[in-house]
Amino acid sequence: MELHIDRRRPMPLWRQIYEQLRERILTGSLPPGTRLPPERHLAASLGVNRATVVQAYRELAADGLVAARVGSGTRVLPQPPAPGPGRSAGPGEAEAPAAPFDWTALLALPTWPPEPPLLREARAVRSGSRQAISLARGELAPELLPTQQLQQLLREAAEADLPWGYGPVAGYGPLRQAIARRMGRTAPDEVVITAGAQHGLALIVRALTEPGDAVVVENPSYYRSLTLFTGLGLRVLPVPVDREGIRTDALAAVLDRHRPRLIFVTPNFQNPTGASLSPLRRRQLLTLARLHRVPVVEADSYGDLWFEAPQPPLRELDPTGPVIYVGSFSKTVAPGLRIGWVVAPPPVAERLAAVQGQQENGLPLVGQWVLAEFLRRGWLEEHLARLRQALRERRDALVAALARHLPETRWQVPGGGYHLWLEPEEGISALAWFRAAARAGVVVMPGDLYGSPAGLRLSFSCATVPELEEGVRRLARAREGLRREGHPGDVEPVV
Amino acid sequence: MELHIDRRRPMPLWRQIYEQLRERILTGSLPPGTRLPPERHLAASLGVNRATVVQAYRELAADGLVAARVGSGTRVLPQPPAPGPGRSAGPGEAEAPAAPFDWTALLALPTWPPEPPLLREARAVRSGSRQAISLARGELAPELLPTQQLQQLLREAAEADLPWGYGPVAGYGPLRQAIARRMGRTAPDEVVITAGAQHGLALIVRALTEPGDAVVVENPSYYRSLTLFTGLGLRVLPVPVDREGIRTDALAAVLDRHRPRLIFVTPNFQNPTGASLSPLRRRQLLTLARLHRVPVVEADSYGDLWFEAPQPPLRELDPTGPVIYVGSFSKTVAPGLRIGWVVAPPPVAERLAAVQGQQENGLPLVGQWVLAEFLRRGWLEEHLARLRQALRERRDALVAALARHLPETRWQVPGGGYHLWLEPEEGISALAWFRAAARAGVVVMPGDLYGSPAGLRLSFSCATVPELEEGVRRLARAREGLRREGHPGDVEPVV
Repeated sequence: MELHIDRRRPMPLWRQIYEQLRERILTGSLPPGTRLPPERHLAASLGVNRATVVQAYRELAADGLVAARVGSGTRVLPQPPAPGPGRSAGPGEAEAPAAPFDWTALLALPTWPPEPPLLREARAVRSGSRQAISLARGELAPELLPTQQLQQLLREAAEADLPWGYGPVAGYGPLRQAIARRMGRTAPDEVVITAGAQHGLALIVRALTEPGDAVVVENPSYYRSLTLFTGLGLRVLPVPVDREGIRTDALAAVLDRHRPRLIFVTPNFQNPTGASLSPLRRRQLLTLARLHRVPVVEADSYGDLWFEAPQPPLRELDPTGPVIYVGSFSKTVAPGLRIGWVVAPPPVAERLAAVQGQQENGLPLVGQWVLAEFLRRGWLEEHLARLRQALRERRDALVAALARHLPETRWQVPGGGYHLWLEPEEGISALAWFRAAARAGVVVMPGDLYGSPAGLRLSFSCATVPELEEGVRRLARAREGLRREGHPGDVEPVV
Repeated sequence: MELHIDRRRPMPLWRQIYEQLRERILTGSLPPGTRLPPERHLAASLGVNRATVVQAYRELAADGLVAARVGSGTRVLPQPPAPGPGRSAGPGEAEAPAAPFDWTALLALPTWPPEPPLLREARAVRSGSRQAISLARGELAPELLPTQQLQQLLREAAEADLPWGYGPVAGYGPLRQAIARRMGRTAPDEVVITAGAQHGLALIVRALTEPGDAVVVENPSYYRSLTLFTGLGLRVLPVPVDREGIRTDALAAVLDRHRPRLIFVTPNFQNPTGASLSPLRRRQLLTLARLHRVPVVEADSYGDLWFEAPQPPLRELDPTGPVIYVGSFSKTVAPGLRIGWVVAPPPVAERLAAVQGQQENGLPLVGQWVLAEFLRRGWLEEHLARLRQALRERRDALVAALARHLPETRWQVPGGGYHLWLEPEEGISALAWFRAAARAGVVVMPGDLYGSPAGLRLSFSCATVPELEEGVRRLARAREGLRREGHPGDVEPVV
């Protein structure tokens, strides 16, 4: 390799070497893979110190033009192809395309574990058969959505000449006001509009916790809350739920031993159990939270869907207390709006809006406008009255079918919401039942997904009355099959 | 205190004590603040072991009914008020309302520092005067938005009977397809729809980093990217930007010393400098990223807004390389849509969609439908052609005004985008100039907000040609004032 060193030039010697090699690499006269001369050889042939060559090679490496590997010397690296479509290969380019970049290590981060296989299985089962009846979908059947009203408001929004610029990160003012009015004893600056309850929960976690913090979670609990918390680096402290909601005695024990940063509960018509927190436990929970200075995040997506009597939210029991309220229109109006809200004291609400601004920079205006009008015109209350009745009819049909076909199983009649928790009798594994049911043509959700293998979640929000009846019949048929065949975990004698 | 113990009952003795005390607390016969008898006294008076009383007190504490404090014994806690509006105070309730919960400690987390005071100052200045000319807003002037077309498409969306249920978390299929077609050499499953570039960046950080990881950032850089990274617990490694974009020599040195998890760059018409990465540095950057196995996150919100010639994105230079591309329609179509996208290899795209599902559970359909039609009909290209011309005229007006009124300052003519970076001559502090300019009736953004105190950001996207001319005149007047008065950091002799 011929290089020229000129000691009279003001440029340092290392840089003269560096520039000549760089030019040859970039023009292709030193193609990728070429091994550069060993440093001491080149230094000797040029009559310079070895440190001078070392410096030149180091700069080339820093430019990404060469790489030194112990044992195999310094080699020219492949350069990425030049820009532009239709180009012809230039002299300095690698002949073969560069190997695809390897993303594996990056995707192996422990904070984002792959989806649980059981969730994939449940999904596959759900989408696998057209004849299957689904009691698995935690959403409203299309006929229960106020589609015509939303369409009408969308047409009006299109005529309203709404601005298309950035909006306020805390949400559209009239919607915040309408929600505050409806919540009662709430000021608009305590309301932050979110892209749904899950998004509100994510904002709260990002604003009020640090990775490594612990959070109390009901067990069983909504499985997306579990993955959200672990995905954001939190440790989950499960506290059992029974027929009266989260067990405050167990919560007290957890609060004595740990220092959780948040307590996450769904006091009304919980997902997946349908259970509601009893009045006594509501007060106990608030007292414990105050005593231990731990905020309670109250998710209340189903609160408006009561069948017998409304349950006051925790926040109403202790308005200046430790409660952050998370609401959603996804379960009551339409998931496609992607709109929920959080109520928190003004400094907390301001922080949540700031986090929202950091990450999403506000929400689209159209849906917020539609919903603000939906509330302002009183359409929400009319819609909720119809919806409660429709859901109550479906719940009653489900409960009647269970009483008829599965009298030995245990369940609690939910006082509202979408879900009923079914616990098979001793000797029947809920997971085996879930699988047998899928084969028998009815899809339910296995309790393992919610952290509790003892039960199955049956949702009545997305199935018609005949579907609910036939679904339970198939569920009973599947359980008969399990009894006859025997199955893992079956402790009854196989007759 | 009279308690009754019955050794013939099947209930344990501690529980008998517990239940009687609990009832008295809940009914108010032991009001809040009452001190319970010391354990050994009560044990002696009842004739039971002290451990029995200890157990009873512990259960009461676990219920949140009492609290033991070293030195002051065990006292009855205040109970939260009972539910419901219009209720009368029950016998067991505290007379005075409970003290408001203290949120201070929770809001003091280091990951969410308060907004920089300078940002508040800039905002206050922006909104303080109606006569002030703003060269500070990084968004399109309302007259540059395709408002009529968006209104028309919104009307069509209202007639299109779009579904109102949950949508796919990776985004609306036809929009993903339209973006993939436009990007070239991109499959729809490599595209994930986001709520804007900032949201895309947040998804990438959450999917591919862990708190404590380092990320390379241009200096100066978009300030919301800085707060986003630190807010998500990352360490920021700044690498200087000059007229050819990020300095690859400095980047190489950083990559040698650190192990960053991502390199975040804006190769085209960077915010705040307006600089674009030179072709040579683009190749060097890609080579360095491959060599060190660090992904490059390429933010390209301004890429379509070129005035002389389009710049190929990094991703196009190395399609199987280390690049994750982040696009946005906020700078080209309308911020109020809240729509952007990310292009990444399918496994990375799938992970990003999963993170989106965890946190936002999909995006509203209406805006995605509108934008998919905007692209499908070719309206985007027509709009971009008009927009480029309008922005070029504004840039030219700004540059002409600078040449006329501020010939001693340094700037680089941006080849596209919204922003121009102005560096005052020696002896003038950019921060002092920003403040003097505000007093003179023109608002610009101080470089400190972007991590570089040496300059000012002037945005020509939101000001008319006459405003740009008058704004620069005021800027020059402010500088003259500084020269006359002298100011902190001024090293020129005051004449």
